[in-house]
Amino acid sequence: MVSYIGVRRIREIVQRVGLGQVLRGMAEAIEADFARWPEFEKVARIASHSAQGVIELMPASDGRRYAFKYVNGHPANTARRLLTVTAFGVLADVDTGYPLLLSEMTFATALRTAATSALVARRLARPGAGSMAMVGNGAQAEFQVLAFREIVGISEFRLVDPDAAATAKLVANMRTMGFAPGAARVCAATEEAVRGADIVTTATAAKRRAAVLTPGMVEPGMHLNAVGGDCPGKTELDPGILLRPDVRVFVEYEPQTRIEGDIQQLPADFPVTELWRVLAGLAAGREHADQVTVFDSVGFALEDYSALRYVHELALERDIGEDVALVPPGANPKDLFGRIAAPGALRAVQEAA
Amino acid sequence: MVSYIGVRRIREIVQRVGLGQVLRGMAEAIEADFARWPEFEKVARIASHSAQGVIELMPASDGRRYAFKYVNGHPANTARRLLTVTAFGVLADVDTGYPLLLSEMTFATALRTAATSALVARRLARPGAGSMAMVGNGAQAEFQVLAFREIVGISEFRLVDPDAAATAKLVANMRTMGFAPGAARVCAATEEAVRGADIVTTATAAKRRAAVLTPGMVEPGMHLNAVGGDCPGKTELDPGILLRPDVRVFVEYEPQTRIEGDIQQLPADFPVTELWRVLAGLAAGREHADQVTVFDSVGFALEDYSALRYVHELALERDIGEDVALVPPGANPKDLFGRIAAPGALRAVQEAA
Repeated sequence: MVSYIGVRRIREIVQRVGLGQVLRGMAEAIEADFARWPEFEKVARIASHSAQGVIELMPASDGRRYAFKYVNGHPANTARRLLTVTAFGVLADVDTGYPLLLSEMTFATALRTAATSALVARRLARPGAGSMAMVGNGAQAEFQVLAFREIVGISEFRLVDPDAAATAKLVANMRTMGFAPGAARVCAATEEAVRGADIVTTATAAKRRAAVLTPGMVEPGMHLNAVGGDCPGKTELDPGILLRPDVRVFVEYEPQTRIEGDIQQLPADFPVTELWRVLAGLAAGREHADQVTVFDSVGFALEDYSALRYVHELALERDIGEDVALVPPGANPKDLFGRIAAPGALRAVQEAA
Repeated sequence: MVSYIGVRRIREIVQRVGLGQVLRGMAEAIEADFARWPEFEKVARIASHSAQGVIELMPASDGRRYAFKYVNGHPANTARRLLTVTAFGVLADVDTGYPLLLSEMTFATALRTAATSALVARRLARPGAGSMAMVGNGAQAEFQVLAFREIVGISEFRLVDPDAAATAKLVANMRTMGFAPGAARVCAATEEAVRGADIVTTATAAKRRAAVLTPGMVEPGMHLNAVGGDCPGKTELDPGILLRPDVRVFVEYEPQTRIEGDIQQLPADFPVTELWRVLAGLAAGREHADQVTVFDSVGFALEDYSALRYVHELALERDIGEDVALVPPGANPKDLFGRIAAPGALRAVQEAA
């Protein structure tokens, strides 16, 4: 049987473990898996584009466990009261090829994206960073804000979004999460939110070449966490930012980010550093206090592998989940027919004969 | 909500519709979809190989529906009383990116493989074909035998397998399916089974360069349905067969078959005909009674698309299936946090704050 974690079960896990702990645990899992990067078979995700959006498959394997995620990105869904991004995934045993876990990943993706952002910022932001501008207050914003509090220790957030209702929702949810009233400052413009911030997170959804941040907004020593530019034709950073001499750009998996990240606007030989090399101690992170570090985040299959194995571990530990018969149970493996041929089916076959 | 067809539900469908009718309906769906081949976005499947086997993802889309299948192939599983091939798949709406159907596909793959074999043989075998050699009597054999009876009108089967228990199982299941006692002849050697047969089907599982058939066994006018050679390093036909001057080779999707099919043993410019061109009337099938036609079958994502849409249609028509919450239900799409944040989760977050 395959373990199944649907929407109700992931809520139960979050409820029992606590959202902050789930974010910290997921960050630990991702950091540990990135540190053993060479063990993984890696491919850029397989995308199917349409006028409305994109559907992607994201596989990764370390030769022991195989994981893949199905994820869509449809910005116009919001107007239909549907989610822009939904996802689910499977963890399988490489040795037998049998699936072990089928899990919802709409929530798990939001969690792993925020956990990845925060663990990267903990490495790259200047020491003592205390403030973050949150540009884009949609579905990902709460997870970012909470992960940066839990993992980076950020206590001051400046919120900005052209949709005032989105910002109001974020403010209300931050209150629910126990943030002090002064922790969230609503800003009228991106310039205002960004000015003096240690970290700037962009998480916007429009599928176009946007310039959410322009070079004039970027101050020495900032860390930019660019989450929303993650698809061909969908960018957030004015390329002038990336070309500043004081900027260093960090990516998950270079071949994929060249296609999907903000660096798609730059020549293919623009220098970038793969994140795992920093985590494994093979490359420098931030080199001095005035350097501008940019995480050109697109979301890589390895993060989903980590998220699925962590969810699986939590589910086993706490005995949460249910079994589904997605695969026929054991018996004579050469007699597949005998397992589908219920008496009625045979009757129908015999009558036709 | 997503419709879910697990192992129990696919059995219910087969029971209510009848296995013969399911095979005929699936063949019709596959034939109709192959005939509109240019409408589909096609990619070779994405394979992850290990010492024990392979795990593959197979996506296809016509811009209205998107389908993918997860499938493994692990020949050593049989010794562990596990299935060599297990599978499941998803049908999704391209316009929103939301999944519509999650279905088991271990059975559906067996059905669509046999349905494809039979619809191709109906086009390519010589008219009036009445006998078939079934080389390899494992999990796929019953589905092949039944599909060839239902769709091609084959009435005489010669069965051969080094595993006598596998053949005995096939004979018993054929009796259950209403085949006349004389319809199945057990043969001691492949030569004996093949001699004089109109059609030769090979469905063997060993992941190696096998030569299940050799050039001396092939007679003028035969149709070869080579099902088992479907993976790099896994072939069934001696390359000498394919190089005979009276042979024409038909494939599903040329870029994939070049890698996975029996033609992997031949130069990249070896001439083949894509099946859809025959079905659409753009290329000739069999040209004369003595020609040897070879279907170098590997299994293409379009067949899984057809199988999923057909299973979905049957499930809707007969109101079979159950709903699963694989994706969060509608509400404010920008408030993903509000949907996961059950009271307990918030309490845990607040206590930590």
